[in-house]
Amino acid sequence: MQRYFIKSNQINPSIITIKDSDVHHIKNVMRMRLGDEVLCTDEISTTYRCQIEAMDAIVRCRIMEQVVEHPEMRVKLTIAQGLISREKTEEVIRRLVELGAKAYIPVVMRRSKIQNDRINYDRYDKIIKEAAEQSQRNVLMQCHHAVAFDELKVLGTQYPTKLVADLGTNHSLKDLLPRETAAILVVIGPEGGFDTAELDQLNKWGYQVVSLGNRTLRTETAPLFVASVCGYVYGDDDAN
Amino acid sequence: MQRYFIKSNQINPSIITIKDSDVHHIKNVMRMRLGDEVLCTDEISTTYRCQIEAMDAIVRCRIMEQVVEHPEMRVKLTIAQGLISREKTEEVIRRLVELGAKAYIPVVMRRSKIQNDRINYDRYDKIIKEAAEQSQRNVLMQCHHAVAFDELKVLGTQYPTKLVADLGTNHSLKDLLPRETAAILVVIGPEGGFDTAELDQLNKWGYQVVSLGNRTLRTETAPLFVASVCGYVYGDDDAN
Repeated sequence: MQRYFIKSNQINPSIITIKDSDVHHIKNVMRMRLGDEVLCTDEISTTYRCQIEAMDAIVRCRIMEQVVEHPEMRVKLTIAQGLISREKTEEVIRRLVELGAKAYIPVVMRRSKIQNDRINYDRYDKIIKEAAEQSQRNVLMQCHHAVAFDELKVLGTQYPTKLVADLGTNHSLKDLLPRETAAILVVIGPEGGFDTAELDQLNKWGYQVVSLGNRTLRTETAPLFVASVCGYVYGDDDAN
Repeated sequence: MQRYFIKSNQINPSIITIKDSDVHHIKNVMRMRLGDEVLCTDEISTTYRCQIEAMDAIVRCRIMEQVVEHPEMRVKLTIAQGLISREKTEEVIRRLVELGAKAYIPVVMRRSKIQNDRINYDRYDKIIKEAAEQSQRNVLMQCHHAVAFDELKVLGTQYPTKLVADLGTNHSLKDLLPRETAAILVVIGPEGGFDTAELDQLNKWGYQVVSLGNRTLRTETAPLFVASVCGYVYGDDDAN
């Protein structure tokens, strides 16, 4: 069933009002009709099964029931990545949403060839919303605005497990992922990889270097590998 | 170091002759010079570190030493997937090479919207070669020509573990991946998913249904998830 993310103020006790681009999606992309059903998820991840009652400049839906779901991964995974091109960032973001990551942080690194000031975050947010609707998540992945490299120092303090993906180590995710689910931050370099000084800094700030295997992954593949492995290792909210 | 895949007949005891499009790559893409070093890998995965001695219509390289490497995943993973668009197939193939899959089999399924007769396999092979060179693999992933759905019956007999990714099950990869490394075949549907009759068939042929988690993965994300998890679970050739 098609899902739409809404705000709590779009809900009155029994009616949800869908607005803006979602109206276009319902009418012209999905070509829905009166009586069709949709899922509506609010910002605190409550999901309602609703039936369309009226369609005009807005779509009015009647709440049929609240739905219990467990689409979220049981660990808070954040990927921080050196700035890469718009196309690659969009692909990474879209797949990370599907794979269950909680947040994505673009980081200005020495070898990033991309300008920090030309990023269209609205576009990224739109991709995140679409991917969440498609993959049936009930939380929107957060995409931070790009941060300076040095901010990884303070950011890292929020994560009991903080890793940096690089080739120069024998430690794998098997060695370094914690047994208990928690918050994990994994830093991935831009296309040219990390500068040595950056690796030294991360090390000083308590990040552990992790190898993602013997093959050289492209920068846009590495986050997908990490998120997939976390999905496997920790499972989803309802897993035993 | 840049790698090139060669045939044994390009090797005489101490000299390797590089030909065709690789010459263009060395001269115009990598802008290498005499004295620069490259890796050359033959079809039985022997790799040589070589030094460029002459560049013309061919590139002549002197073998410096044989190199011992362990870039391969410790399990033979084959992904069979319902035919999807060229762009998506190219992306899947490229990432599967990086992630270590051994073979990719496009399968004609009922909900495939793509024509079997318009596939440019040369282009896929080129992508596989480039991705293998970039990711430092020493085996080229095999891309089969598209097969009819019914061929999965016989194909499946070659794999002690054969799975089909679908939502209607509680069994996860954690339950179904074998402890010992072996040959694994995972079948993934096209964009519209499997037809019920196809799932019944696969079941009859001994395929086990596996869930890839509570989120709905796009067809082009599912193979990357499976390959990443196999990389994590089984590790690489040299892993203990």
